[in-house]
Amino acid sequence: MDKLLTGIKSTGIPHLGHVIGIIYPTILLMNKEMFQKQFILIANLHTITNSNVIKTNKTNSYKILAAWLACGLDYKKVICYRQSDISEIPELLWFFSAIFPYSRLKLVHSFKEYKKKNQIINTATLTYPILMAADILISKAEIILVGKDQLQHLEIARIIAKKINKIKRIFTIPKAKIFTKLIKGTDGKKMSKSKNNIIDIFSKKKQIKKQIFKIKTQNKFLTEEKQFLTDNLYNIYLNFAGSKQIKKKFHVGYQHAKEEFYKLLISKFKKERKLYKYYMNQTSKLEKIFKIGATKMKEIIQPTMKKVRIFFDCY
Amino acid sequence: MDKLLTGIKSTGIPHLGHVIGIIYPTILLMNKEMFQKQFILIANLHTITNSNVIKTNKTNSYKILAAWLACGLDYKKVICYRQSDISEIPELLWFFSAIFPYSRLKLVHSFKEYKKKNQIINTATLTYPILMAADILISKAEIILVGKDQLQHLEIARIIAKKINKIKRIFTIPKAKIFTKLIKGTDGKKMSKSKNNIIDIFSKKKQIKKQIFKIKTQNKFLTEEKQFLTDNLYNIYLNFAGSKQIKKKFHVGYQHAKEEFYKLLISKFKKERKLYKYYMNQTSKLEKIFKIGATKMKEIIQPTMKKVRIFFDCY
Repeated sequence: MDKLLTGIKSTGIPHLGHVIGIIYPTILLMNKEMFQKQFILIANLHTITNSNVIKTNKTNSYKILAAWLACGLDYKKVICYRQSDISEIPELLWFFSAIFPYSRLKLVHSFKEYKKKNQIINTATLTYPILMAADILISKAEIILVGKDQLQHLEIARIIAKKINKIKRIFTIPKAKIFTKLIKGTDGKKMSKSKNNIIDIFSKKKQIKKQIFKIKTQNKFLTEEKQFLTDNLYNIYLNFAGSKQIKKKFHVGYQHAKEEFYKLLISKFKKERKLYKYYMNQTSKLEKIFKIGATKMKEIIQPTMKKVRIFFDCY
Repeated sequence: MDKLLTGIKSTGIPHLGHVIGIIYPTILLMNKEMFQKQFILIANLHTITNSNVIKTNKTNSYKILAAWLACGLDYKKVICYRQSDISEIPELLWFFSAIFPYSRLKLVHSFKEYKKKNQIINTATLTYPILMAADILISKAEIILVGKDQLQHLEIARIIAKKINKIKRIFTIPKAKIFTKLIKGTDGKKMSKSKNNIIDIFSKKKQIKKQIFKIKTQNKFLTEEKQFLTDNLYNIYLNFAGSKQIKKKFHVGYQHAKEEFYKLLISKFKKERKLYKYYMNQTSKLEKIFKIGATKMKEIIQPTMKKVRIFFDCY
């Protein structure tokens, strides 16, 4: 009877990568296994480290919640909350900051990558993994659903938990469960908004079509033997149809295969796209769901927060 | 009709340096000038950057409040609050972290000093000035009573406020009012607990006597001409008596002068010492005062916090 946590940053509408890689597997896991508690975090505080997306932060939180609901999340069965509604999370950030060396933060991959490309680095970009440790540890979840690129952040949460538990047993030491189903972007790299290679499954049909037609394919003549295993369109397609079926489409041509893939996606996600639109027209409903999640979360975390405040003799 | 803020870290009982340098001048100023609001912050979140004092953090917060009350603070007329009761302060830390470059934090004097003496530096020691900016800006006070060594921290608060105000006018740009009355420690350096040179005016008489007898004096024979201007005992003494009166005591000898200074202090602080003891025996009363302060503060800061959350589109 473990507890489960996963989170998505509010940087935009969840794209096909999120849906296939995070949302569906999470919902599947939740339905299959009996968890004691299930947490869905919409991380809108993390988002502000990137000043370009601040302006759409609120709408983006709605978009993510709408996508979860559209894909079948039953918000009554989980604790689905928006990070900024839980002020105890930044409070934990400060407490954890007092026991985690700053020099180690500079060794985090994502920070080093950011440093390569940017001259001015805001403090939050450095302290980001500590806020994430707060997200994780406050839930006391044993299992954290993460992408491979998040493993180092989870390790920081584990270090902090162990350091405190050595003196006073407060936290659960969390373990990663890695999302294995990955869908590549239209350029063959990891699907990511920042790489401009996404398929925006909840956006307008025209937009989706455009993105699908952007998928890089091998430039082969119709009569030539196709190398399916390394073909990007084929591999994305494989998430939604059998290989035999797909190969048939390819025999007519790439253009045709793209057209068919587009039709398939629109048909597969018909219900979800409709529901997404429905929820996005009812943001007051979404706001209410966030409020319910925050109330549940606030209640759950109080015993832990009390222990933490006593640990730092701040109460 | 300005607003005024001052703060003391909860690292121990306020010593004579605090009383003469901060507490009395603040109360005097509060009585003399009409301020719209007066904030007294007991900074117990800042304290945790030093792991050695965490264990006594709670008691130390009581000690500081008891000292303020003993010296005549009317808690009903001010907003006297304990930092950890206001979770909006660490919340602001995160928001401000997103717009303040971390490399500038490394240039702060106190950080550079710390770095010289310590190999492992916790993250909070680096981000400390941003938490202090949160303390300052959340109050919207125009005048911040600080020691000279805090000017750089105040400047960071001003930079953050200006940066946000440029886009949306939310904060008051605070100005420093520097505490000018400084009392030297028993070794002639700035009185500070970490330098072990304090006079613990609220502790046991025996302890105070011991500390006074530790005051370094010039080793001169009775008949020798004394260089009063550079004499440490004389200079500390000057805070409580006229030069003529003091010189008389010195003519009998240093030992005698110390004995007389001790008697004078005990007599001058008779009421305060009694009141301090009284309050420290009634910590539930102190706790109630903190609760009153927190309630007032929470109400005052809501409009500002709302604006900040809207600024970062996190609401």
